Amino acid sequence: MPRPSRPLLSVDLIVDTALRAVDTAGDFTMPGIAAALKVRPSSLYNHVGGRGEIVELLRERAMSAVLVEPSAEVEWTSTVAAIARSYRDAYAAHPRLIPLLTAHTVRSHTAVAMYESLAHAFRRGGMTSQQALDAITTLDAFVLGSALDLAAPQEVWSIEATTDRDFAEVLAHANTPDRADRAFDAGLGVLIAGWSQLAAGS
Amino acid sequence: MPRPSRPLLSVDLIVDTALRAVDTAGDFTMPGIAAALKVRPSSLYNHVGGRGEIVELLRERAMSAVLVEPSAEVEWTSTVAAIARSYRDAYAAHPRLIPLLTAHTVRSHTAVAMYESLAHAFRRGGMTSQQALDAITTLDAFVLGSALDLAAPQEVWSIEATTDRDFAEVLAHANTPDRADRAFDAGLGVLIAGWSQLAAGS
Repeated sequence: MPRPSRPLLSVDLIVDTALRAVDTAGDFTMPGIAAALKVRPSSLYNHVGGRGEIVELLRERAMSAVLVEPSAEVEWTSTVAAIARSYRDAYAAHPRLIPLLTAHTVRSHTAVAMYESLAHAFRRGGMTSQQALDAITTLDAFVLGSALDLAAPQEVWSIEATTDRDFAEVLAHANTPDRADRAFDAGLGVLIAGWSQLAAGS
Repeated sequence: MPRPSRPLLSVDLIVDTALRAVDTAGDFTMPGIAAALKVRPSSLYNHVGGRGEIVELLRERAMSAVLVEPSAEVEWTSTVAAIARSYRDAYAAHPRLIPLLTAHTVRSHTAVAMYESLAHAFRRGGMTSQQALDAITTLDAFVLGSALDLAAPQEVWSIEATTDRDFAEVLAHANTPDRADRAFDAGLGVLIAGWSQLAAGS
């Protein structure tokens, strides 16, 4: 009698399962993955070195959705803006992955390639390497925060929670489908204008 | 024989327990809180309405560490900067709380009071209410992303993971204790300068 077919255990299957656990419950555990895949925890270690390696594979997976097209033919600011948009969209699909990944040292090749492209762009624009580090860190923070905002509910702030006139006027603009995108474009515009000035002056 | 003493079940105790679960495991459940407090899940509902109410109490708890000193006597940019710093520090202590809170509509009084102060500051600076909404959203994203960055390991990027000259030069500045603070100050400076220009022009 043939054994019941079961998907062959693989790195991809382990990463799929870990990502599903993070999306649902905010984290994964090795015993949890083993239970979901109906294997012994020890079997997982034939494919991955442990929790830290899975975290880095999750980063690699998320980052593979980021389009990095390094090109010396476009303005450096266009490169930065294109990476920022695509980076935000990739993480908005998995918001609960964000604090897990920021708590670990970045090693994933695809992630490092994105940071290299950002370093090229900021240096090409004329920044010092110190300024480029600060700009990369600010971009990272703004993009990951914006990914969380894109994943937020339609009603970010309860309109009933305020009786303040200024804030109520602000909230009158908030309940539109393009709220997050518009705010992201505005914020990215402010940052890129500021970085351009900084780069031109250094 | 006296019964073994056990802390009386209270809203504060429930929120403490939920926060500990989020800090440790990225999320909380009602049965998990009940088990940790050695009570029946149904007992929790004598004190809180359910999961959504606990989420909002967690926001209230985190936001109570944010210093909001609305004052018409200081520059609006100083108010914005002071809130941003204090808001970042409050959430850096509980990074895993961030995606939980951004996934829920804001109702907490203390949170709303902070947003009201931001709305006053941006409007006082001369922004339209639409610009103020975009600025509040950008500040939120930048602050929450920076809180995650402040909670990141000392080595954010593995220096061994790159052979790229530009990025290696950038990383040469990264391994200092003040990396996150310096980048936050730089990013906040760029944003506030940009918002000042925007407000002056509108």
